[in-house]
Amino acid sequence: MTQALITLLTDFGTADYFVAAVKGSILSTCRDARVIDVTHEVPPHDIQYAAFTLLAAYKSFPAETIHVAVVDPGVGSSRRAIVGRCADQYFVGPDNGIFSYIFEREGDARVIQIQNEEFFRRPVSDSFHGRDVFAPVAAALANGVEPDNFGAEIADWVRLDSLAPKVLADGNVQGRIIHIDRFGNCVTNLTREDVDVGFTLAINDREVTSLRRFFGEANATSAELFAIWGSAGFLEVSVQNGSAASMLRAGVNDPVELLVHRERG
Amino acid sequence: MTQALITLLTDFGTADYFVAAVKGSILSTCRDARVIDVTHEVPPHDIQYAAFTLLAAYKSFPAETIHVAVVDPGVGSSRRAIVGRCADQYFVGPDNGIFSYIFEREGDARVIQIQNEEFFRRPVSDSFHGRDVFAPVAAALANGVEPDNFGAEIADWVRLDSLAPKVLADGNVQGRIIHIDRFGNCVTNLTREDVDVGFTLAINDREVTSLRRFFGEANATSAELFAIWGSAGFLEVSVQNGSAASMLRAGVNDPVELLVHRERG
Amino acid sequence: MTQALITLLTDFGTADYFVAAVKGSILSTCRDARVIDVTHEVPPHDIQYAAFTLLAAYKSFPAETIHVAVVDPGVGSSRRAIVGRCADQYFVGPDNGIFSYIFEREGDARVIQIQNEEFFRRPVSDSFHGRDVFAPVAAALANGVEPDNFGAEIADWVRLDSLAPKVLADGNVQGRIIHIDRFGNCVTNLTREDVDVGFTLAINDREVTSLRRFFGEANATSAELFAIWGSAGFLEVSVQNGSAASMLRAGVNDPVELLVHRERG
Repeated sequence: MTQALITLLTDFGTADYFVAAVKGSILSTCRDARVIDVTHEVPPHDIQYAAFTLLAAYKSFPAETIHVAVVDPGVGSSRRAIVGRCADQYFVGPDNGIFSYIFEREGDARVIQIQNEEFFRRPVSDSFHGRDVFAPVAAALANGVEPDNFGAEIADWVRLDSLAPKVLADGNVQGRIIHIDRFGNCVTNLTREDVDVGFTLAINDREVTSLRRFFGEANATSAELFAIWGSAGFLEVSVQNGSAASMLRAGVNDPVELLVHRERG
Repeated sequence: MTQALITLLTDFGTADYFVAAVKGSILSTCRDARVIDVTHEVPPHDIQYAAFTLLAAYKSFPAETIHVAVVDPGVGSSRRAIVGRCADQYFVGPDNGIFSYIFEREGDARVIQIQNEEFFRRPVSDSFHGRDVFAPVAAALANGVEPDNFGAEIADWVRLDSLAPKVLADGNVQGRIIHIDRFGNCVTNLTREDVDVGFTLAINDREVTSLRRFFGEANATSAELFAIWGSAGFLEVSVQNGSAASMLRAGVNDPVELLVHRERG
Repeated sequence: MTQALITLLTDFGTADYFVAAVKGSILSTCRDARVIDVTHEVPPHDIQYAAFTLLAAYKSFPAETIHVAVVDPGVGSSRRAIVGRCADQYFVGPDNGIFSYIFEREGDARVIQIQNEEFFRRPVSDSFHGRDVFAPVAAALANGVEPDNFGAEIADWVRLDSLAPKVLADGNVQGRIIHIDRFGNCVTNLTREDVDVGFTLAINDREVTSLRRFFGEANATSAELFAIWGSAGFLEVSVQNGSAASMLRAGVNDPVELLVHRERG
C-alpha cells in the first residue's frame, strides 16, 4: 500500500509552531501520509508569490499528489475554501487565486467548494484554517474520500491576473516580472511561444539581447545581463556572478517588453 | 505496521550539519521512524521559547508520537536527561524545563531519568547529546522499548515559571507575554478561564479593549490594537496590517494586566 | 520492504520552488523513497562549505543511504556528474570536489561518471540538473539500479585541498579553519592525531591554551577562548557565551598554528 503524498506551501515561516501543527493535524487524520515541504518562506500574505512557486513545482510530483497551500489573509472571513482536481493531482486551500495559474494552464480543473464541516478538526479556530480545515480535508483525500463529498462544484473560483503576456499592435509583446529568486534571477511571464527568431528585451531602461543556453557559458567575470530559459519554463534575466534584480533595480510586476525581430521576407 | 512518528525541536538552525546528524542517528537505530520538524529556529539556548512552541503543537499530533526537544545549554554538565510520558505521547530531552508547560498542563506525567547508557550512540560526545543520547533513546522508544528501561522515575524534574497568571487582590489578573510570533502577534498567558464578561488589557502603557473573532474583521487599514483568541488557546494582542510587538515595543515576559469588568449586581 | 533513504544538500535556500522540484522528481521515479534534508542553506556556490557539512553528517546515517549534493556553479557546462560508492553509502552530484573529503577519508571510493541519459528526467534543462539528472539518478539507485549502469569508473575525480594539516620542520602543525557554525565556533582541520601531550593554538594573533571537555565547564560569564573536541571530530575554538569567530575576526581558511608541547625526555 503506497503512502499518500501531501505537499505544504505556506507563509508561516519555520520559527513558530504553525507548520508542525498543520503536519500533526494531517497525521492525526491520515497516520501514513507523507508530508513534503514546498516552502514556508512565502512573504506574508503574498498570494502571487505562492501561486508562482506551486506552478513551478507541481509538475515534478507524481500523480495523486495532494498540494496544500495556505497563504490566507482572509482567514475567518467569508472567503471560500476549495479542493481542485486537475493534472491527476489535488489542490487544497483558500479560494483567493493561489491555484489559479495552475487551473488556467490545465484548463480542465474541477473546483469544489469545501462546505461539509464533518471533516474539520474541532473546534475550528477562526485564525488557523491551515490546521483545522485544510489539513484534515487533505488528509481525508489521502484516505480516499472523493472531492464531491466536501461540497458543490463552483465555476467562479478567484483568478489572479493571467500569466499570458499581451501582444501589442506592433507585434511586440508586453510581459512582466513574475518572480525574483534567491539568486536575483528575474523570472518573466514570457515563454518559448512568445519568442521568434530574434528578440530584444527592454526592462527598466536596459536592453537584453543575449540569450544563453546555460549560466556559465561566457566569461565568468562578465557583468553582462543575459536572458536564459529558466527551469520553470519562463524566460529569465540573469547576470553571471551577481543579482540581475539588483542591477536592474527590478521588482515583481515590473513590465518587460519583448521586441520581436522578424525574418526578412 | 505503522511507522513511528518522531518530532524534532532544536536551536540548531538549519545551516549546519546538526539536524541531519540527529536524523541520521535516529534512522540508524530505527530505520523506519518518520521524523517531523517542529522548528530548528529556536533562538540559541531559549528554553522558554522552545517550551511554548511544543506546548502549542503537541496536541495536534496523534497518540504515541515521540517528541524530541534539544535546547540544551547545559550539555556535558551534570544536568539530567529525561523521558516523559503523558497525553499518550513521549517527550525526550534535557531536564531543564523544556517540557514543563506540558507536564504541568497534563498533570499526570511520568518522568524517567535517562541513565542506561546501553542505548546511547558510541562514542558519546560531550557537546552533542542530540545526536548521541536523545536521538537513539527516541529511536529505542520507537522500537518499542519501555521508558522504565532507561532509568528510574523522578518527581523533581525542572519547572519553568508557571504559565498560570496571578489573580490580584482587586480581582484583576496579572499575566505576561509568553511568545511573539513571526507576524508580531503577542501571545499572553491568559486563557478563556481568566476572562469575564468584559475586560481591558493594559500593556506597556497602552489599553486594548476590542476583542475580535478573526483578523480581517474590521477596517483592514486600521492600525488599532485588538485582542483575539489565538490558535494556541491563549489571548493574543494583534494589529491588522503590522506588528503589535513593534507598536507596543513589547518583548517576551513583559507584564500584561487584565482589568476585569464585572456585571453590575 | 524498507524504504530507501535519500538525503539532500544544496545551496537552493528554502524560499524558492527548487527543493520541492527535486523532491518531486525523486518521488516521481521512486514513489516510496524517503527524503531527508541535510541543509539547503549552503552559501551560493560554496563547495567547501557543502563538502564539510556532508563530511560531518554522513556517518550518522545507516548503510545504503543515498546522499545527493547539489552545489553546482558549473551546471550546464562540461563538468562531469558522478555517483560515488564508499562507506556502504552512495553519493550523487557534480564532480567538483563536493564529496572529496569523504572519498579521501574512506580511501576506497568507487566513482562512476554519469553518462547514461536514459535515467534522466526529460527534457533536461541546462540550469537545473538537481531536478533533471541527480534526483532521477538517485531515485534509480533507490530502485536498485547498480552504479555501473550509469557510466564508467573514473579515477581523476576532482579533489578539494586536502583536509590534512601540514607538519612543519619544527614539528609544529599548520592547520586552518574549515567551517564556522551558527554559534560562531571555529572548526579547524586538526584531529586528535595531531595533538600531543600539550599544545598552544595560535590563531589571528591570539593564543588558545585551554582545552575543555564541554562548553559549560568553567565560569559561564567568562569570555575566554578555549579549544574543544567538536562533534565532527575536529578541534574547535569556542567561547562560552558568544561567537569565537567574531572575537577572533576569523574566517574560513584562516590559518591556525598548533604549537606542540613535547614531553621532556
